[in-house]
Amino acid sequence: MKTRSTLITLIVMLIMCSAALYAEEPTVPEIRLADIQAAVANQQIIADTLWVLIAAVLVFFMNLGFAMVESGLQQAKNSVNISAKNFIVFAIASLSFWFIGWGLMFGDGNAFMGYRGLWMLSGPDNSPATGSAYQGVYSALNWAGVPLFAKFFFQLVFCATAATIVSGAVGGRIKLIAFLIFSVLLTAIIYPITGHWIWGGGWLAQRGFWDFAGSTVVHSVGGWAALAGAIVLGPRLGKYNPDGSPNPIPGHSMTLATLGVFILWFGWFGFNPGSTMAASATDIARIAVTTNLAAAAGTISATIIAWITLGKPDLSMILNGALAGLVAITAPCSWVSPGGAIIIGAVAGVLVVIFVLAIDRWGIDDPVGAISVHLVNGVWGTLAVGLFAAPPWAGGQNQPPVGLFYGGGILSFANQLVGVVIVGVFVFILSWIIWVILHATMGIRVSREEELRGLDIGEHGMEGYPDFESYTMK
Amino acid sequence: MKTRSTLITLIVMLIMCSAALYAEEPTVPEIRLADIQAAVANQQIIADTLWVLIAAVLVFFMNLGFAMVESGLQQAKNSVNISAKNFIVFAIASLSFWFIGWGLMFGDGNAFMGYRGLWMLSGPDNSPATGSAYQGVYSALNWAGVPLFAKFFFQLVFCATAATIVSGAVGGRIKLIAFLIFSVLLTAIIYPITGHWIWGGGWLAQRGFWDFAGSTVVHSVGGWAALAGAIVLGPRLGKYNPDGSPNPIPGHSMTLATLGVFILWFGWFGFNPGSTMAASATDIARIAVTTNLAAAAGTISATIIAWITLGKPDLSMILNGALAGLVAITAPCSWVSPGGAIIIGAVAGVLVVIFVLAIDRWGIDDPVGAISVHLVNGVWGTLAVGLFAAPPWAGGQNQPPVGLFYGGGILSFANQLVGVVIVGVFVFILSWIIWVILHATMGIRVSREEELRGLDIGEHGMEGYPDFESYTMK
Amino acid sequence: MKTRSTLITLIVMLIMCSAALYAEEPTVPEIRLADIQAAVANQQIIADTLWVLIAAVLVFFMNLGFAMVESGLQQAKNSVNISAKNFIVFAIASLSFWFIGWGLMFGDGNAFMGYRGLWMLSGPDNSPATGSAYQGVYSALNWAGVPLFAKFFFQLVFCATAATIVSGAVGGRIKLIAFLIFSVLLTAIIYPITGHWIWGGGWLAQRGFWDFAGSTVVHSVGGWAALAGAIVLGPRLGKYNPDGSPNPIPGHSMTLATLGVFILWFGWFGFNPGSTMAASATDIARIAVTTNLAAAAGTISATIIAWITLGKPDLSMILNGALAGLVAITAPCSWVSPGGAIIIGAVAGVLVVIFVLAIDRWGIDDPVGAISVHLVNGVWGTLAVGLFAAPPWAGGQNQPPVGLFYGGGILSFANQLVGVVIVGVFVFILSWIIWVILHATMGIRVSREEELRGLDIGEHGMEGYPDFESYTMK
Repeated sequence: MKTRSTLITLIVMLIMCSAALYAEEPTVPEIRLADIQAAVANQQIIADTLWVLIAAVLVFFMNLGFAMVESGLQQAKNSVNISAKNFIVFAIASLSFWFIGWGLMFGDGNAFMGYRGLWMLSGPDNSPATGSAYQGVYSALNWAGVPLFAKFFFQLVFCATAATIVSGAVGGRIKLIAFLIFSVLLTAIIYPITGHWIWGGGWLAQRGFWDFAGSTVVHSVGGWAALAGAIVLGPRLGKYNPDGSPNPIPGHSMTLATLGVFILWFGWFGFNPGSTMAASATDIARIAVTTNLAAAAGTISATIIAWITLGKPDLSMILNGALAGLVAITAPCSWVSPGGAIIIGAVAGVLVVIFVLAIDRWGIDDPVGAISVHLVNGVWGTLAVGLFAAPPWAGGQNQPPVGLFYGGGILSFANQLVGVVIVGVFVFILSWIIWVILHATMGIRVSREEELRGLDIGEHGMEGYPDFESYTMK
Repeated sequence: MKTRSTLITLIVMLIMCSAALYAEEPTVPEIRLADIQAAVANQQIIADTLWVLIAAVLVFFMNLGFAMVESGLQQAKNSVNISAKNFIVFAIASLSFWFIGWGLMFGDGNAFMGYRGLWMLSGPDNSPATGSAYQGVYSALNWAGVPLFAKFFFQLVFCATAATIVSGAVGGRIKLIAFLIFSVLLTAIIYPITGHWIWGGGWLAQRGFWDFAGSTVVHSVGGWAALAGAIVLGPRLGKYNPDGSPNPIPGHSMTLATLGVFILWFGWFGFNPGSTMAASATDIARIAVTTNLAAAAGTISATIIAWITLGKPDLSMILNGALAGLVAITAPCSWVSPGGAIIIGAVAGVLVVIFVLAIDRWGIDDPVGAISVHLVNGVWGTLAVGLFAAPPWAGGQNQPPVGLFYGGGILSFANQLVGVVIVGVFVFILSWIIWVILHATMGIRVSREEELRGLDIGEHGMEGYPDFESYTMK
Repeated sequence: MKTRSTLITLIVMLIMCSAALYAEEPTVPEIRLADIQAAVANQQIIADTLWVLIAAVLVFFMNLGFAMVESGLQQAKNSVNISAKNFIVFAIASLSFWFIGWGLMFGDGNAFMGYRGLWMLSGPDNSPATGSAYQGVYSALNWAGVPLFAKFFFQLVFCATAATIVSGAVGGRIKLIAFLIFSVLLTAIIYPITGHWIWGGGWLAQRGFWDFAGSTVVHSVGGWAALAGAIVLGPRLGKYNPDGSPNPIPGHSMTLATLGVFILWFGWFGFNPGSTMAASATDIARIAVTTNLAAAAGTISATIIAWITLGKPDLSMILNGALAGLVAITAPCSWVSPGGAIIIGAVAGVLVVIFVLAIDRWGIDDPVGAISVHLVNGVWGTLAVGLFAAPPWAGGQNQPPVGLFYGGGILSFANQLVGVVIVGVFVFILSWIIWVILHATMGIRVSREEELRGLDIGEHGMEGYPDFESYTMK
């Protein structure tokens, strides 16, 4: 009896002992394992968030780059106005993307636009639009493991970039108020809608259109809006002779232009590697290298082409070559080899020189070359995905098909082309309509007298460099 | 017998088996668990340190922002002097905060000041002042889990910021040597003492005074010191007419001013989110958003008010609007909602325009608007904690009471007001005494001839832009 | 029988139970432990990579700093040329270091140079040069745990820095094409070879030569190449009177020079703390502090010496004092105490003022003081390792012997001296030969007419500031 009961006790204990190791019931180490796993997962969130925020801050800084490039490449008499436009436009984008754009672009909705989470007024915790600090009603970004506010901030600085692209092309003759109103519409509506198609889970994304960091989403969208504005506005006074031949209107500070492009290149290390929206070591290192090589190749090829065609290497061409390379590598940066990046950048540098000269001859006055840089090379870079994409892949959860030059079919290239064309048609027409309506109602162009005297006096009542003798500031 | 002994053996083994799972003695996996937990904790330290150092570097960069804003908003003939002041003052702050300030501010001591760890000459490992690479005798910062050197460096760049605020308001007429001596005293003594009260565990902290990233600790302290200096110095020659009406003295480069403000905005993404002194994902993302929204709202509201009151949107008002929003959101950035941030920023933008115009009329010559930006909005931002603070909280281990507008009592607001007033009285009087003593002994103002000719020639024997025809450089 | 069989069953179960805890066979928690350990190790790689890439981006930004310093300190008529040189040279470095330099410097080879992994055309995954995304055939960098692309990018930006140092010293009279060709040779061959000796596991490294972040590898190498160029080129027209006495040729914008030095200081927080190539919390915090203290001390000592010797504190001396401190602390930053850093920086600030004045008198025309900053203080900083190195050590896997002033023998100092001399002789002679060959074949100096009119018109066909009345731009 005694032995029997002892045995039963033993068996019970054994069962407990075994259960402790293999059962569903967690034992103490089991619990600590789960805790540690959660802690490690949390470390990944922290690293991702650090990376996304730092990248976003670098992209924010690009607004300064744009301001300095656009200012340096235009006349001293308009420098206050250019600075003001670039400065205010970021503030406008911050508010309009907060109130409307973010929800239109990434909120759950249909293939054309998002319509949930439009008013992110109170943030992820107490807004009806959102249910979690990490996901909310923004399913298209659920793949990114960073807090919703980090996603918002990163996307906001991209949106603002698109608006600053317009600023340069319409410089020297546009009414401040007209530009600001257009910027509200661009950042609240146009950019978010096309963005939804591509990054928000919309119809182009579903169709197989690939744009890693925004050659189309950001740059060519900004470029198309700029082109529409430049056409509706017409050229600056004195830009063209009666026979249609263009006159150069040199920028007032090539040092500022250089400063601006270096800042943009600097910021692009947030723009492209940051678009992983995750701190994946090999991916971000690789994207930093492809981005840099394309910029370098664009610089060199633009220098050579400018040297050949113009006789001397014009600095504005050199600088635009770097920007062209950067814009072009933006879509394919994570899916091409370093060698591919060099080719894409080198082609971009050639394209930008050719198009700056051509657009000038076509009677479209783009004082800073924004259309050649952002539209032309935004298109080129997007198409390049269909040509050069090849493993080893980097960045993000999805990859495009292998490109044409690496044995892929024509379909991927065709899909890229279709997306480029439709986004272009949509943005150009919508922008053109807005510019025409603004023109018909409030007017978009300053008076002849104001333009000659400078927009700084006319729009702001002040001069940019009052201590200096200047030809253009009178 | 055999059965019995077998049973005993079994029982012993069972006990061992159980003990292995539940006992104090660690088993092999137990040991590895502890190792892994330590490794994970170390990852958190690394992430925190990366964040704090990167944020500190961004705040360091704000010195360039201040130099460019202050230079751009003043005359060409004083540009070398302004650059020199802003450059040297950071070097001074680096040394004087190292030798004295850091210990006064964060060293263990009493409610008024710290008095241990004053001479951090040999660092955390072999200085008598310190006992660990992470904590030392700086208990008020023990909550931050980063190395002592990271804490020091982060706090140093904040201290230097306060000194650069003074530089702008006293520009165009102060003797270089007087400014440098004042800067030594400000960074070694004044700033650290009031800082100890609030961030060093001193009497205001104990009383319930809340300032997350330094609207009071940094900005209004700098602003009060600047106000005292501007009053003791008197206005620049030609600033006021015999009837007391002010003349505008336009800045020599609005492009530089724009450059500077963009850099400051950029640096503020270190200033505010970095003040968590920890890489807490949701907190830093949230603070980046509130900071940015307040700056954007300040920009827009200042633009509108300037447009209404001045007829045209003056760029210096637009730029100061952004800075005002940034200064105001600094204290409450982690404790308010995005909606609250927008309101705080919008009010700041209005305040700065009103006060720039008012201070000008009151006969206080502040060439760059530093008092309106840093003092007025430092006060406003600190009070705003008592009005807008509300969960969900972010950042740091402690939270203020809920603000007045969210159902909190008047006590929190009153506490903020008391702190603001006492810090203001202390800093203003102490600064005023120092300025008066300097004035009485060595003189703080350059000669009339030197001022007219420019401080660049007078103080430095050189011109800022010798290749250009300039009205002010003669 | 029943009891017996029960007992056997029990024993078997007990053995299983014990085995589960102690056996080689991994149990479920055991497997998860290994997974978690791998995940933690991966977190370390991610943190390291974030740090290295962010530091690299900061170092990239130093190119803007150099461009602005060199532009500001030279004449307006050469500003386009200076910007163009600094801009293109980074693009050149990016490509030539990619194609050749990286493999020469870090590829496995012999004590003189690397010869594997020369053509990193296709990246770490499909290039014959490389076998892993983390190590490849670059054994000298195996100690760094970041992806190969991160190592490459970090080393690339260092290489580009060396080339920009040359740019300043040869400014105002060099043919653009000659400078570009020299830059290709410097970044593809000269810099990588001496770099291999020190950082690539070559003969100086084996001999016990210590240079943490590149006082010699980057700065004095750039400085020696610059010295050779300045000598072969001869001084600018008008720099010296017939009696050999120098004339000052003031820079066209002290604001730009200030901007540039602030950016360089900012970038140095990537240059020095980033050279850990790992996110080691206490190390990077400590290096940030020593770097900053040396820069501050250099600023202050140069200010004082300039004030004493020149009568007034010349801003270019103040700025060069900061740079001198930064260059000098670069080699020893991780191995000296904060007190040591202050002394090293203070000496550097004195040296730079003395040498700027002396080199001017010696008939070597260095328009920006590059030789005094980078060569002289690169040498000083490297020697300082042999004087001031002392525990507590920071940064990296190896430490130098204790320095002479801390009780070490003369051997370490002697080793540093030998390395400094041999690197200097090698780089100076090789550079001198290249400059002479370029001079003899294509010519390295622009025509007298072009120099007088400005290189902007001569080399680029444009003006830097066409809207302004300028003395030098005619």
